[in-house]
Amino acid sequence: MSNQLLPVVDVSADACCAPLVSQPLNEAETMELAPLFKALADPVRLRLLSLIASHEGGEACVCDLTVPFDLTAPTISHHLKVLKQAGLIESERRGTWVYYWINPEVLARMSALLGPATALTGSPA
Amino acid sequence: MSNQLLPVVDVSADACCAPLVSQPLNEAETMELAPLFKALADPVRLRLLSLIASHEGGEACVCDLTVPFDLTAPTISHHLKVLKQAGLIESERRGTWVYYWINPEVLARMSALLGPATALTGSPA
Repeated sequence: MSNQLLPVVDVSADACCAPLVSQPLNEAETMELAPLFKALADPVRLRLLSLIASHEGGEACVCDLTVPFDLTAPTISHHLKVLKQAGLIESERRGTWVYYWINPEVLARMSALLGPATALTGSPA
Repeated sequence: MSNQLLPVVDVSADACCAPLVSQPLNEAETMELAPLFKALADPVRLRLLSLIASHEGGEACVCDLTVPFDLTAPTISHHLKVLKQAGLIESERRGTWVYYWINPEVLARMSALLGPATALTGSPA
């Protein structure tokens, strides 16, 4: 079984930016992108994002996200809020719990930005 | 036309980490990765990195990097130092000027981390 043929998110059409190696960012683009990187500039938030992103079914209950950490629930909530405000994750309350999932377009955009020129600008011969 | 079949840079062999969507990061991995994101959590550094990455010939003289900014040379030098300490760029003095180039493995690793599961875990059917 392979999942290589999953659709690739096209982040070139309606959002900045071409890969760094293709063309320099302008000031406006960097002002928009820096907060995304800032949201990931913390070990707890990186781990939370990875727990959400890799969770079975593509979403994680906040009740699953506190267990792996030796941190209080309010601290976890704070970090989740930072990730959400940056646009990296989204959430919804269902009954007792809040559920979180990643925003794949935002992650794909960051990935493409740091990736090789071929990711967006290459064209088949 | 599609560029889905372009070769994917393999960063899995000798460095962490699998894409976030494939498996959660452990604490050690997040401690190693967070400083990379922190180095990019600044508009000036993002722009500097993109100017270096996209510069003709793959390297940029520090003399080319101060022009686009309304900042002093020491401020630019500080930001370049942060990028270098994080391992995102490397440099060499040649005569009067210092030249900078990106560390493509580090950028590829960050890109793969944020990218789709297929980038590293897919296998041909």
